[in-house]
Amino acid sequence: MNVRELAEKYESYIIERRRYYHTCPELSEHEVETAKSLKADLEAMGVEVEMCKNCNGVVGTIKGGKPGKTVALRADIDALSVVEETGLPFASKNEGAMHACGHDNHMAMLLGGAKILTEIKDQLPGTVKILFQPAEEVATGANAMIAEGVLEGVDAIYGAHIWGDFDAPLIDASAGNRMACCDGFTIEVEGVSTHGSSPHLGTDGIVAAAAIIQELQSYVSRNNNPLNPCVVTVGTINGGQRFNIIANKVVLEGTVRTFSRETLATIQEDMQRIVSNTAAAFGATANVTKYSHMTPPLINDNEDLNKIAQDAVIKLYGEEALGHLPTMMGSEDYAFFMEKVPGIYCFLGSRDAEHHYINHHEKYDVPEDVLKRGAAMYAQFAFDFLEANA
Amino acid sequence: MNVRELAEKYESYIIERRRYYHTCPELSEHEVETAKSLKADLEAMGVEVEMCKNCNGVVGTIKGGKPGKTVALRADIDALSVVEETGLPFASKNEGAMHACGHDNHMAMLLGGAKILTEIKDQLPGTVKILFQPAEEVATGANAMIAEGVLEGVDAIYGAHIWGDFDAPLIDASAGNRMACCDGFTIEVEGVSTHGSSPHLGTDGIVAAAAIIQELQSYVSRNNNPLNPCVVTVGTINGGQRFNIIANKVVLEGTVRTFSRETLATIQEDMQRIVSNTAAAFGATANVTKYSHMTPPLINDNEDLNKIAQDAVIKLYGEEALGHLPTMMGSEDYAFFMEKVPGIYCFLGSRDAEHHYINHHEKYDVPEDVLKRGAAMYAQFAFDFLEANA
Amino acid sequence: MNVRELAEKYESYIIERRRYYHTCPELSEHEVETAKSLKADLEAMGVEVEMCKNCNGVVGTIKGGKPGKTVALRADIDALSVVEETGLPFASKNEGAMHACGHDNHMAMLLGGAKILTEIKDQLPGTVKILFQPAEEVATGANAMIAEGVLEGVDAIYGAHIWGDFDAPLIDASAGNRMACCDGFTIEVEGVSTHGSSPHLGTDGIVAAAAIIQELQSYVSRNNNPLNPCVVTVGTINGGQRFNIIANKVVLEGTVRTFSRETLATIQEDMQRIVSNTAAAFGATANVTKYSHMTPPLINDNEDLNKIAQDAVIKLYGEEALGHLPTMMGSEDYAFFMEKVPGIYCFLGSRDAEHHYINHHEKYDVPEDVLKRGAAMYAQFAFDFLEANA
Amino acid sequence: MNVRELAEKYESYIIERRRYYHTCPELSEHEVETAKSLKADLEAMGVEVEMCKNCNGVVGTIKGGKPGKTVALRADIDALSVVEETGLPFASKNEGAMHACGHDNHMAMLLGGAKILTEIKDQLPGTVKILFQPAEEVATGANAMIAEGVLEGVDAIYGAHIWGDFDAPLIDASAGNRMACCDGFTIEVEGVSTHGSSPHLGTDGIVAAAAIIQELQSYVSRNNNPLNPCVVTVGTINGGQRFNIIANKVVLEGTVRTFSRETLATIQEDMQRIVSNTAAAFGATANVTKYSHMTPPLINDNEDLNKIAQDAVIKLYGEEALGHLPTMMGSEDYAFFMEKVPGIYCFLGSRDAEHHYINHHEKYDVPEDVLKRGAAMYAQFAFDFLEANA
Repeated sequence: MNVRELAEKYESYIIERRRYYHTCPELSEHEVETAKSLKADLEAMGVEVEMCKNCNGVVGTIKGGKPGKTVALRADIDALSVVEETGLPFASKNEGAMHACGHDNHMAMLLGGAKILTEIKDQLPGTVKILFQPAEEVATGANAMIAEGVLEGVDAIYGAHIWGDFDAPLIDASAGNRMACCDGFTIEVEGVSTHGSSPHLGTDGIVAAAAIIQELQSYVSRNNNPLNPCVVTVGTINGGQRFNIIANKVVLEGTVRTFSRETLATIQEDMQRIVSNTAAAFGATANVTKYSHMTPPLINDNEDLNKIAQDAVIKLYGEEALGHLPTMMGSEDYAFFMEKVPGIYCFLGSRDAEHHYINHHEKYDVPEDVLKRGAAMYAQFAFDFLEANA
Repeated sequence: MNVRELAEKYESYIIERRRYYHTCPELSEHEVETAKSLKADLEAMGVEVEMCKNCNGVVGTIKGGKPGKTVALRADIDALSVVEETGLPFASKNEGAMHACGHDNHMAMLLGGAKILTEIKDQLPGTVKILFQPAEEVATGANAMIAEGVLEGVDAIYGAHIWGDFDAPLIDASAGNRMACCDGFTIEVEGVSTHGSSPHLGTDGIVAAAAIIQELQSYVSRNNNPLNPCVVTVGTINGGQRFNIIANKVVLEGTVRTFSRETLATIQEDMQRIVSNTAAAFGATANVTKYSHMTPPLINDNEDLNKIAQDAVIKLYGEEALGHLPTMMGSEDYAFFMEKVPGIYCFLGSRDAEHHYINHHEKYDVPEDVLKRGAAMYAQFAFDFLEANA
Repeated sequence: MNVRELAEKYESYIIERRRYYHTCPELSEHEVETAKSLKADLEAMGVEVEMCKNCNGVVGTIKGGKPGKTVALRADIDALSVVEETGLPFASKNEGAMHACGHDNHMAMLLGGAKILTEIKDQLPGTVKILFQPAEEVATGANAMIAEGVLEGVDAIYGAHIWGDFDAPLIDASAGNRMACCDGFTIEVEGVSTHGSSPHLGTDGIVAAAAIIQELQSYVSRNNNPLNPCVVTVGTINGGQRFNIIANKVVLEGTVRTFSRETLATIQEDMQRIVSNTAAAFGATANVTKYSHMTPPLINDNEDLNKIAQDAVIKLYGEEALGHLPTMMGSEDYAFFMEKVPGIYCFLGSRDAEHHYINHHEKYDVPEDVLKRGAAMYAQFAFDFLEANA
Repeated sequence: MNVRELAEKYESYIIERRRYYHTCPELSEHEVETAKSLKADLEAMGVEVEMCKNCNGVVGTIKGGKPGKTVALRADIDALSVVEETGLPFASKNEGAMHACGHDNHMAMLLGGAKILTEIKDQLPGTVKILFQPAEEVATGANAMIAEGVLEGVDAIYGAHIWGDFDAPLIDASAGNRMACCDGFTIEVEGVSTHGSSPHLGTDGIVAAAAIIQELQSYVSRNNNPLNPCVVTVGTINGGQRFNIIANKVVLEGTVRTFSRETLATIQEDMQRIVSNTAAAFGATANVTKYSHMTPPLINDNEDLNKIAQDAVIKLYGEEALGHLPTMMGSEDYAFFMEKVPGIYCFLGSRDAEHHYINHHEKYDVPEDVLKRGAAMYAQFAFDFLEANA
């Protein structure tokens, strides 16, 4: 079994599929036709398919010829509301939607991986689940699929992202912090309205909110371990009724980013302590009225899987194929899968002399010869994991 | 000539007119029927009337029997959008409007004053202008009338307010600071948007705005003479696009109150220094994009007029009729008249055991026996000023 | 009895005495020779004198020929540690001390007043107490004299200050706020030390102190009635051990100035609320560890005494002699006397073309022809108060 | 040649030397006797020694039997002013000084390494320089030795620290950020003094300093890449003259820690922008009057040396001997050597059930059987580096 050669063999299929999906992007939670087409593609390979009921997820199952564990391979399938400007012959035909994040490539690579695995399935000591996940950009798809039970019986999961800010054709399978959590919060500061000329008769919610905003920044710089990357951003502020009325209410909305589970365990309480005490200094009240852990941090902290993935890269394309993409503060809802089962998340570089736009840009495009590498990684990881645990 | 007795004589007229106008309040800049009625009232006394063209102002002229100066008497005539809850038999019939600020009384008192003055006009050494001013509550009426030339040839002006937070039937004719200016400002803070997880790639407009809000308060407490009452209120704040985006714009609106013309001369510049430097510390920019002196401070600083008014009170009702209402931070667009001609502004108390609501309250009402005092003051001041300057 | 004429008669005595005391200034709490000399001066007039035991105060008593109340007249006697640069022939001979605040004039004027009153004592319906108070500049003298019982039996007190920022020879006897209180406070902020590279392992007292300093300014601008002049100044800050250690302690010292007894009643509690809540937002603790009302506000709020003093000015030198010195935020320990007995505090202008330095300046000097006016006021007020209450 | 066996052979020598040096600690910049003794120890092995002239550094040279490159091995030799409380039989005999940081072990391990290398010097393809560095704790020793030319002709350098917060007998040879830089700064804020009751007549340096302190924290949380660990600590603040005087000067001292050379290139300028603009908002001035890069960041960023060191650990004691000590924000002046020549810095764990105090604690002690590992690493690294570059 030589996965690299099989990936070469299916390269034209992979590229053809990538171009097809690129033409017909569908926005998050609206991936209806995409899901139907993926189902057809998998069935055409002889893969058994189940469609999710509460989302546009697609689950294929490749049963190996030998008994063993179950490994899941995941690709996300939704597009962004971006007006494409690549000028490609296979550019988006869906006005206002574009696979600017590169999920078209993810689908094609996972289809390629499935193709390879179906070809070698007699040798597979276990089962491979093919997960096409919708709604990644809005962070609802992974949870929707998990709620439908797609992880039942799954022993490990592998996912990957093609990346415009990383040299093609490198593959990153680094251990440790990869992408930060995304938490969301709402803080409401309550003052007491009165005429703007007589502040002493009321309580100024805006001045209290200003102090809170500054104190939240001190939380990051003083209360957080500087070796633990952490961001607290107040992204919106809205308060007051009229220029000459003391504001009785100010609402702040923001986000917290970190990799630290200790921080995540206490941040809401810490934030409440900061806002309520600061407000009290002004005679106002303030509360963290909403705090949600929207996406967990994505940390490649399973040493066995890290090694399997790194060895897979080396086995396929040599040491020189391994690259290192620095940790990022952005988030990825694949982290929900990794909260449930052991997993790893890799990156595949797409930057070269001709391709220098980053993901989400209206001109984002990739050198298509890297796609076979992504397909090979899906297959190699699945095979090696099952072998190692046979 | 005994003004006090004449005021007694016309008391029932004054009260009747007050009740009439109380029934039919009209909101600021919509005082059409009120103006027509006032015109009719004045003409019924034989006073020559001119209607303003660009506003609902009414100007009556009483020419005295002897040559002399010209004095203006002013009453404001607009109502508030308050749902009346007094339960009075003559309560507002105009749904959603109420003479909650007491301007109905002002009209009645000035009509009473006009009545007295027409009766003694042969003895008057000069001319009296009766100014019924619209749109006081929105601070546009005084300027509109001034623009129409109503102050041409006027040598002095007298106005008064009935006041719920001041004991009936006292009259305040205090010298010095009476009501503060009202300035309005808009500050725009510009940052640079980027993803909320990567603050270093942008510039956070909200954190810069928070510092600006605090520094503006320090302006009041540190840069202003503590003996010069001053208020800087940021009444509204709105900024940012989304909880997870670094805010590129925050807009603050607020008001400044002071009595100091020195402060007013430099405040915009001082504020610009504060906001632009503070923003620069964060790498942001901020500007005072709008600054308007909406209403000047109202200061009884003409010693001659102060004395005429105080003596008038004593002459009419004795020393015990003089009260002192402390300086207030609220504003009054009568101050525009006082910027153009020497003037004075008095207050008439309306609080007693049965009348304890303050102006603007939906149950504000007055003991009607104070109204004749207000009418007498209009007439006495006018007569004494003209006599003194004959 | 014509006090004005008597003051003219003793003018040369007054000036001579002023020059004498000017030559031999003694610092606060060290007025030993000054007190001895004042005693001799009073005894030379036949005034009975008692020396204070716990301070360098001197108390003379002039018993009138008729029964009546008792009125106290006060002058302060201490000098400043200023190196005189007036170049006067009677300049200080005590190196490093100078009567730069003008207390030499106060002594001379009160000696002149005593001289007048002894001459007319047969007509006096009551008793006059002459109080020469030490240690005004350090705010300990008034209390020391009160503790010795000098106000026992006293029904009213009169004091005055010669003033370089006020036109000679005007006299101010204004009602209302004259000089602010002086309170002193110490705030201690406690953090937790740790290495400066690991702030999260400690609690940064300096960052908490910084927030407290800003919040205290907001107290003035937001929680205080803008019509109530108020100052909160943090005058010193000292904290931390070393540049690379997180500070575990910061000490702030400051002062509060106001005229409002309501503010004085709650300020310590309000300050504690601000500092403890603000510190708590950072996980630190902070306390107002010392708060002392050092000098009360000086407010001329006794209407009867105000009128006696104003009438005395007019009686002596006419309406044109009355001036108005605006309220000041500085403090004066005479206020302690006024907390115990009804009182009034006046000012005498010393500014003219040749005398333009202000009090405390090393070149401060006065036109000596105003001194007889100060002497006359002492005597006239005493006589008129006793007459009015006979 | 088997370095591991040679290290076993000399273990008793190493332990004996460690105990000896533990008894006679000398404070930074006073390591006179220590240096003499080290010279004697090296000479006893036949190593040629030179003493530094401007510091207490000792340089041994071991010339190999074959031509080649030159590698330096460094150990620091100074002690801390800590009163030892270990109760060890070989505890410090120098009152008030203790090898609480473990430099006694460093000396013993490097002597052991030198012993091994002298034994095998015929096989050495190059030269080994033995650097005993004084004054590490005060960050002056490395620069002093560099100034004397000890790095001339050196191609690579290896150093290591024994560490109480890291399990014995693991060895860390991690790549990347190891210890942060240490910068020191002084900020002076200038206001204008005036009486504390009249803030508007001066400029309050303390309120400006408070804003600066807060803005510096925002720099860390907003302007710094959250993936770049960074600390800005203001460790001391001192300002103002008296509780009732507006402060005209405040001095802040602090430290910056980071690993980023980009940050270090701009931090002083950024800090100046923050302090001068913030001060200007208050009408004050502020400057970064002193900024010194005291110790550079210590980053193991030479891939070849990283690999040689990691392979050395594995060769000597197997994969299981490799541990990972997380990045630390503390600093180490060894970084100066690494600015001049390629280098690597490793850690040797000393924590076990009986040894749980951390470095700098008065009871810090180590399990002595780890010392031979440290000695072996010195020798192995030197040998392997020279072999690899022969």
